Amino acid sequence: MADSSRLFQPVSLAAVAITDGFWAPKLRVNRERTIPIEYEQCKATGRIDVFRLDWTPGQEPVPHIFWDSDVAKWIEAASYVLTADPNIAGMDFGRGLDALLDEVIALIAGAQQPDGYLNVHFTVVEPEKRWTNLRDWHELYCAGHMIEAAVAHFQATGKRSLLDVVCRYADYIGTVFGVGPGQKRGFPGHEEIELALVKLYRVTGERRYLELSRYFVDERGRQPHYYDLEALARGDDPRKFWARTYEYNQSHLPVREQSEVVGHAVRAMYLYSAMADLAAETGDEGLRRACERLWTHLCTRRLYITGGIGPSRHNEGFTADYDLPNETAYAETCAAIGFVFWNHRLLQLDCDSRYADMLERALYNGVLSGVSLDGERFFYENPLASFGQRHRQPWFDCACCPPNIARLLASLGGYIYSQNDRDVAVNLYMGSSVKLDIGGAGLALRQETLYPWSGEVTIRLEMAQPLAFRLRLRIPGWCRSASVAINGEPVDLAGVVERGYACLPADDGQPRVWQPGDRITLNLAMPIERVYAHPDVNQDAGRVALQRGPLVYCLEQADNLAPVGRIALPGQAELAARFEPDLLGGVVVITGQTLVADAADWSNDLYRPQRPALSPCTLKAIPYYAWDNRASGGMQVWMPEIT
Amino acid sequence: MADSSRLFQPVSLAAVAITDGFWAPKLRVNRERTIPIEYEQCKATGRIDVFRLDWTPGQEPVPHIFWDSDVAKWIEAASYVLTADPNIAGMDFGRGLDALLDEVIALIAGAQQPDGYLNVHFTVVEPEKRWTNLRDWHELYCAGHMIEAAVAHFQATGKRSLLDVVCRYADYIGTVFGVGPGQKRGFPGHEEIELALVKLYRVTGERRYLELSRYFVDERGRQPHYYDLEALARGDDPRKFWARTYEYNQSHLPVREQSEVVGHAVRAMYLYSAMADLAAETGDEGLRRACERLWTHLCTRRLYITGGIGPSRHNEGFTADYDLPNETAYAETCAAIGFVFWNHRLLQLDCDSRYADMLERALYNGVLSGVSLDGERFFYENPLASFGQRHRQPWFDCACCPPNIARLLASLGGYIYSQNDRDVAVNLYMGSSVKLDIGGAGLALRQETLYPWSGEVTIRLEMAQPLAFRLRLRIPGWCRSASVAINGEPVDLAGVVERGYACLPADDGQPRVWQPGDRITLNLAMPIERVYAHPDVNQDAGRVALQRGPLVYCLEQADNLAPVGRIALPGQAELAARFEPDLLGGVVVITGQTLVADAADWSNDLYRPQRPALSPCTLKAIPYYAWDNRASGGMQVWMPEIT
Repeated sequence: MADSSRLFQPVSLAAVAITDGFWAPKLRVNRERTIPIEYEQCKATGRIDVFRLDWTPGQEPVPHIFWDSDVAKWIEAASYVLTADPNIAGMDFGRGLDALLDEVIALIAGAQQPDGYLNVHFTVVEPEKRWTNLRDWHELYCAGHMIEAAVAHFQATGKRSLLDVVCRYADYIGTVFGVGPGQKRGFPGHEEIELALVKLYRVTGERRYLELSRYFVDERGRQPHYYDLEALARGDDPRKFWARTYEYNQSHLPVREQSEVVGHAVRAMYLYSAMADLAAETGDEGLRRACERLWTHLCTRRLYITGGIGPSRHNEGFTADYDLPNETAYAETCAAIGFVFWNHRLLQLDCDSRYADMLERALYNGVLSGVSLDGERFFYENPLASFGQRHRQPWFDCACCPPNIARLLASLGGYIYSQNDRDVAVNLYMGSSVKLDIGGAGLALRQETLYPWSGEVTIRLEMAQPLAFRLRLRIPGWCRSASVAINGEPVDLAGVVERGYACLPADDGQPRVWQPGDRITLNLAMPIERVYAHPDVNQDAGRVALQRGPLVYCLEQADNLAPVGRIALPGQAELAARFEPDLLGGVVVITGQTLVADAADWSNDLYRPQRPALSPCTLKAIPYYAWDNRASGGMQVWMPEIT
Repeated sequence: MADSSRLFQPVSLAAVAITDGFWAPKLRVNRERTIPIEYEQCKATGRIDVFRLDWTPGQEPVPHIFWDSDVAKWIEAASYVLTADPNIAGMDFGRGLDALLDEVIALIAGAQQPDGYLNVHFTVVEPEKRWTNLRDWHELYCAGHMIEAAVAHFQATGKRSLLDVVCRYADYIGTVFGVGPGQKRGFPGHEEIELALVKLYRVTGERRYLELSRYFVDERGRQPHYYDLEALARGDDPRKFWARTYEYNQSHLPVREQSEVVGHAVRAMYLYSAMADLAAETGDEGLRRACERLWTHLCTRRLYITGGIGPSRHNEGFTADYDLPNETAYAETCAAIGFVFWNHRLLQLDCDSRYADMLERALYNGVLSGVSLDGERFFYENPLASFGQRHRQPWFDCACCPPNIARLLASLGGYIYSQNDRDVAVNLYMGSSVKLDIGGAGLALRQETLYPWSGEVTIRLEMAQPLAFRLRLRIPGWCRSASVAINGEPVDLAGVVERGYACLPADDGQPRVWQPGDRITLNLAMPIERVYAHPDVNQDAGRVALQRGPLVYCLEQADNLAPVGRIALPGQAELAARFEPDLLGGVVVITGQTLVADAADWSNDLYRPQRPALSPCTLKAIPYYAWDNRASGGMQVWMPEIT
């Protein structure tokens, strides 16, 4: 077993109120626009009523193998909304959200089969194919999302209506799969249930769910390969697997032997998240080391500057080291969200800021870009450059991303703080208040900041009596100059920064005894930075990106007279940041004098032996997450740099 | 009708012997390795024996809807080999090529149905689906290739064995499709038969084949849209067409209204080739103008420097203007071949060097890259940069490219010269001799050159008596300094260059009367050139490519110590060209001093705020067509340039 005292727990969503100027409006849009719209889409496309099981052959649309998961993620998102505010108003549904959830859950419960099985497609469309193709189909994936939904619903409402359903389902799954006689030694083609089962274990205390998760994780990639046997049993040739390699679903090797992130990016993130969960729950060092290897590989070789991952549309996933094309970047919203999940889990292991840095990079850039400012349109793919043809859509046939971003945003309060018996860690800077219990004593912590526009943060402590604990303040990796003061007295950070967190001590180095009303101020210098990619990122060679604080910037055509694809930044160009309250909900923009390649004298040439002439122009960059909310036009993150 | 005297005819393959130091060895490899290998692949994969129609349900493999076309293209290629040398030796088949063709053709003829229909898949696998989905399936495409094969076989051997089969098939198709009562107003989802029918018309003189071609071309894109009606008739929802737009197969508009190249690139090229054919045969100015618009759009907005076209794997085709990604370039070999076909047809309309320039660009770069130097492996996609993971393959399930390049190379002799009653045009420079008939008088023209390594060309005329004709020598678009001499006497080119061809006159400006033994020498200056892309080609911004003569160069890892992706070329770097006889079959390489981005101090950073340091290194570039013939490694065409 691990030294569990080293572990941190995320402070739960229920204990946190987000009052932030940046995030609170986005969460309101998520609550009031996105989540209702997603319900309506699920309803209108038949995804909800299909749980009545009255679909008949020939009827269109045919319930798809992953429809269940879309509804499940919506339930999960709606449940987080209820958690944050149990008395939330009607949200335009004509009845309370709580009542609506009851209604949907009753439908789902009614679709459960006598043996516990629960999947619409394989109940009404192809019942004879149940569990016959774990490699390609999504039964266990849907089960996982339904479990996550049930856990969130139970935590929000205390109701066991969906929880009991998924427990029965999980118990049934536990009879089907395993190493016992007569059991299938299968595992999911699309990972998800593994992390869900850990959540189910945590909320029920039933260790069999943890064991089932561990079974799925450890069975993965063993020989003889289950997908080979399963294909043969279906009468298929295993070599005809369309993806050609089991790297596609990370089953090419046992997970403990994996050291490179490969295949479908969302699948990878969900698997790795479960591995981190199991490492936390069981102290399994093998899984933890595998996570560490995979994380290092991803972050040093295969990560977009936006926190997006998986460049290829072909496998919705990873390709080769340093292959990070910009225009064709797939960088699925769900994959960036999965990367947030994984980092959040790793962060709890030893409160290392590396993980929070990556979580933050994805959250403020490649995740947040996934939804429009009005909450009504969604990116499935998040390219880093566009010719003007890439736009968010209201919905997708494969609609995984919209409810995924909804559930992440609705649960954002759960990502800000971590704690254990003697530590309180501030992982993210956003205006919020949190109620904590430190060894039985109550503590309220109030955070005020204009982050991500400013690096100034004030934290106030409110408690009935003095309280000793280590307050850990994350010093973000992007910050090269940070200062901290306690009640106005500067703290010497030398020697107190531990794994990227300032651990504020007493004068004698012992955990500090904090006083009611103590005020901690943190100042993170947030200049505009030019960022360069590793020389092996061919697509970014000779190019530069702009970053300020956690935000990656981009040039969008709406702000620039010069075609953004032609803009090149001189090495010495001066750049300035200013807040524009009326732009895109209020953003800090970056402006400066730059150069633009001149196309006027090119007539009809596509190629020619003279390099383009350069003329002066002005540049205005906006945060990447906010692009494609105005007139259609070009966008790019990486600009050529003229040195 | 057109002023037919303005039209040129390609000088046929049968009249030309290629003696070229560059091409003759490649044609020998094509003849002795590629074509036999492709036969063996067709044989081994069941594509040939399936014409016995003895496939039964459940048997693997299932005959695919485009198998017929692979065999047809092989027949066409083999027929061109016979045309060039009717007494060609056994080619390892254990019998003569002529006899082998007879054998394969007999099988095919036996598969023709009593009504004339001929398609394996829709005879043995899904006979009830004949002509039910022109949009997605390949019946008319396969018919087109079979017609091309039959024409080539007839021209090579004088045998009507396959020609009669395809005439019956074409006649049957002519009863099924058309505007008459009871006929289907359909047209092919994958264009091909249109150009094939023009060939069939030319060889048979039967005008109904020309009319059927014109019907298919002009019916395309009319409303109500046939693919909508056809989908409804199948019980499908037309809106569920996977490609989402009829741009995919260029049926979004009537062809005469089209002005942008869109959709699947091979389909587009075959359609446009047929349009050029019809324009040539009928003088149809509307089709010619459409060709001109489409060609201009392609060449000024959507063409790779290699002559590759169609950047996207998704639709195997076109995306947006100036969207020319390098690593992910699809640039299918077949599409570049189709671009050669189209340019070759346009070139005959008025002998404009623009078309020959594009033909040459594709031929020497994006087409020739499609096959390995040993003739045994093939690129389907032709990227302009690689991390080392892209390699030619021995065969493909969808095997369109290998026999396509085989038939183009085997018929290369037909691309060099054009003529009409009073003109002889030299379109391509390659060592060759050709026998011509100028108004009844015989002429032999002998061309000697080391092209593409050198721009010096000598042409000798041999005839029984003096002969008046215009000799047109193409001045390639890449050449900025050309000189011509007749029997050692320099010719003043001012005023005699017409549409990019030097039209060598007499002293009085009239067509020259040539004397037996006349010797024309052409000198095309061939320095190394730095080439830049239009400023709107975002992916090439700040980058430079190297070109010498018609050849585009690339850096391949096998020749360079520095990782090729990190090499950046200073604006003033001196570059030198030298011939290396033992490298890659003998190539001119480009060498020079350059800079390489240093990754040593990056440790594990993927992004950082300091730009990479640059160190000196040497550079060695090879012709693009020759890459991936040695050890696996990176490759790139476009290098960052440091100005």
